[in-house]
Amino acid sequence: MNLTKNPYKGSRDFFPKDKRVLNYLFDKMKIAAEKFGYEPYDGPLLEEVDLYKAKSGEELINDQIYDFVDRGKRHVAIRPEMTPTLARMVAQIHQETPKPIRYYAIPNLMRYEQPQKGRLREHWQFNCDIFGAPDNFGELEIIQIIISLLQSFNANHTHFEVLINNRKIVDFVFKNLLSCSDELSYKLYKIVDKSKKVSKEALQEMLNKTDLPASKFETFYEYLNLKNFNEVETFLAKNGFENPLKPFIEKMTHLKLNDYLTYDPTIVRGLDYYTGVVFEVFDKNPENRRAICGGGAYANLLQIFNEPALTGVGFGLGDVTLTDFLKTHKLLPDFSKQNPDIFITYLSESCSDFAMEVSQKIREFEGQNLQVVFHPLPVKPNKAFTLAENRGAKLIIIIGESEVAARRVSLKSLITKEKIDLEFNALETAPILKLIML
Amino acid sequence: MNLTKNPYKGSRDFFPKDKRVLNYLFDKMKIAAEKFGYEPYDGPLLEEVDLYKAKSGEELINDQIYDFVDRGKRHVAIRPEMTPTLARMVAQIHQETPKPIRYYAIPNLMRYEQPQKGRLREHWQFNCDIFGAPDNFGELEIIQIIISLLQSFNANHTHFEVLINNRKIVDFVFKNLLSCSDELSYKLYKIVDKSKKVSKEALQEMLNKTDLPASKFETFYEYLNLKNFNEVETFLAKNGFENPLKPFIEKMTHLKLNDYLTYDPTIVRGLDYYTGVVFEVFDKNPENRRAICGGGAYANLLQIFNEPALTGVGFGLGDVTLTDFLKTHKLLPDFSKQNPDIFITYLSESCSDFAMEVSQKIREFEGQNLQVVFHPLPVKPNKAFTLAENRGAKLIIIIGESEVAARRVSLKSLITKEKIDLEFNALETAPILKLIML
Repeated sequence: MNLTKNPYKGSRDFFPKDKRVLNYLFDKMKIAAEKFGYEPYDGPLLEEVDLYKAKSGEELINDQIYDFVDRGKRHVAIRPEMTPTLARMVAQIHQETPKPIRYYAIPNLMRYEQPQKGRLREHWQFNCDIFGAPDNFGELEIIQIIISLLQSFNANHTHFEVLINNRKIVDFVFKNLLSCSDELSYKLYKIVDKSKKVSKEALQEMLNKTDLPASKFETFYEYLNLKNFNEVETFLAKNGFENPLKPFIEKMTHLKLNDYLTYDPTIVRGLDYYTGVVFEVFDKNPENRRAICGGGAYANLLQIFNEPALTGVGFGLGDVTLTDFLKTHKLLPDFSKQNPDIFITYLSESCSDFAMEVSQKIREFEGQNLQVVFHPLPVKPNKAFTLAENRGAKLIIIIGESEVAARRVSLKSLITKEKIDLEFNALETAPILKLIML
Repeated sequence: MNLTKNPYKGSRDFFPKDKRVLNYLFDKMKIAAEKFGYEPYDGPLLEEVDLYKAKSGEELINDQIYDFVDRGKRHVAIRPEMTPTLARMVAQIHQETPKPIRYYAIPNLMRYEQPQKGRLREHWQFNCDIFGAPDNFGELEIIQIIISLLQSFNANHTHFEVLINNRKIVDFVFKNLLSCSDELSYKLYKIVDKSKKVSKEALQEMLNKTDLPASKFETFYEYLNLKNFNEVETFLAKNGFENPLKPFIEKMTHLKLNDYLTYDPTIVRGLDYYTGVVFEVFDKNPENRRAICGGGAYANLLQIFNEPALTGVGFGLGDVTLTDFLKTHKLLPDFSKQNPDIFITYLSESCSDFAMEVSQKIREFEGQNLQVVFHPLPVKPNKAFTLAENRGAKLIIIIGESEVAARRVSLKSLITKEKIDLEFNALETAPILKLIML
């Protein structure tokens, strides 16, 4: 058998240098969510396919899902997204849980697609959702979390923007101003969704293929050309519709976060799911002009379980798009080295036992969790320094015969080159921390 | 459609109280591995089935694996264990990576089995492996990690023991003392593996069914009745075989970890994979007398990739068995409440904006990552206290009209009942931490 050493198509091997990056992202996500009081949850890797069909319809199921029939004849799928699992879980507990309910998760997900930049078959997705919050509050907090997360990587409004819209505005334009049927409205949604990715001519051609009367084209384009909150305000006022984004914008302005927001009439996000505010967070760099994450407000998530309505707002942010964003702006620290606290080795075999004792003692320092790499072979001092430096160790300990005889330990900082010499029994947290802290 | 709210059979919904437990276990695992200089890795959820067949043979594949053919006609499986992925990854890099290579991961895995105590279809498994370490060192360090992990939950040798054996001893007994063929040796391995779970009579019956001559039964039982390291030492010496466990035991004794070790002739673990030390960590409580984890030394992991031999030692420890162990010994803290740092709310709608400002400011305290739960509805003070206490918050802030007017904030510890009153601009890390820290 000739086995491949490569990972399955569209998935990744995370060697330590890659896994440290992923862990760094996960830690920041966890912190951002928990700062806002979001509680962690997780669910099964597999769900019954009926759950995805109920939420997303047949289209996604047929094209993009990893489904199969298990040995017990259940038709199941590897989760392509977390929301259906979340809906199933919230349906179990929402009636007796105080509102708002705030949940976050960072699951691995799989979608069957052609791998390309920013899109792989397996990725991790940071999900935050809030249920049962008052109008506009959930939207505000969800976007605050995203901004807080990206700020924690030292990104700001020069690096990214939140493109925002409200499905109520789109529905008003399509249903009231353009007098569309549900069917035509559905087609226009798809056209609006694609409008930024195609030429003016192609856009017009798509429009010509619909049943929208030519007399309505001007209004359609007037909507599609709205550039900012003032323009949408004027446009809606002129047509006698109260701007549903207004209270939300006011709150964002109060928190001095309005610099991050841009109105964008082409943001509609999916067709059945969202019912209010919808948004996508975009990289501002022309080289990586793409969505880092998206989300919005939804009203009918629990409908598929015949549960009473519960409003929700949420977003999903993938590790692949986030990494692309951070790399584009050089905001990703260097994780190529292990950077342990201490590298310890010895000069001859007879020193091995004492070196191990020293390692054991340091690892047991209460509450410090110092990372100690023990090199289990005798080496010459020069080689020891090279090994320690290649790993990016902060401190080196080399045990020789004289250290063993005197039961003493000599510690050297690889950063400041400072040295301390201590009796084994005097090995304590403080002097070691002093050498590794910078 | 009538959708179930239950998770897929043998998998679990992790509501926050459950996910906090899992995160607590993961954190401890990460710390234990990194203390010993192990580096994190991860790999794909799916691998080609050929990889598992090459490592484990057809048996596991046919009965227990979640396999299916993807849309590109690849025969793939959801990973039932991490080792084959690890082998594939290490095969890519071992030639140019300094030894020893130390890796750890905490992947989610799936096996198709009948759910029962300690066994589910989906679980997480803590894996540590060390490659290319000198004889006995890898075995020592791997077992040190497990002891360190369990000690970090305040478990000690009164709670668990490491049952240990060496495949070289078993091979010596079967091949040299009992003169078994490979085939008979294979059958005896299976009998030894089952011997503790069956009656003496059933054991004898299994033995009668093999080709082992009755004249050899006494030696077989003599082996199977070895109770401790002294007995195995005497037994092997009598038969002229140098005890391969001796240097390992000496090193463990030097580190004062020998209290954790028990010799057990029935520990053999699988058939093809392990080649040296094998072990299982057992709960000592008679109510939960089962393995928490197992592992051992192997020599031929990279053979399936036609790579040069590389010795390794590793273990796998599942979240389900670990949780059962901790619960049995009452070593699992209470994670039923969220326990945020701060709960903040307000008395009337006009106070909402200021309360949000206060939340924002506290969340932005550099390096503190304080968890702030904002209650987005006006409530009476009594209700606010109840809500905060139900969540286990450490500190409560209630904003009223007078606070808004004076731009002041009143903080109250829910633990010590201590109170501080500050100007908004004087809100700083120090006084808040003082109220939160105990």
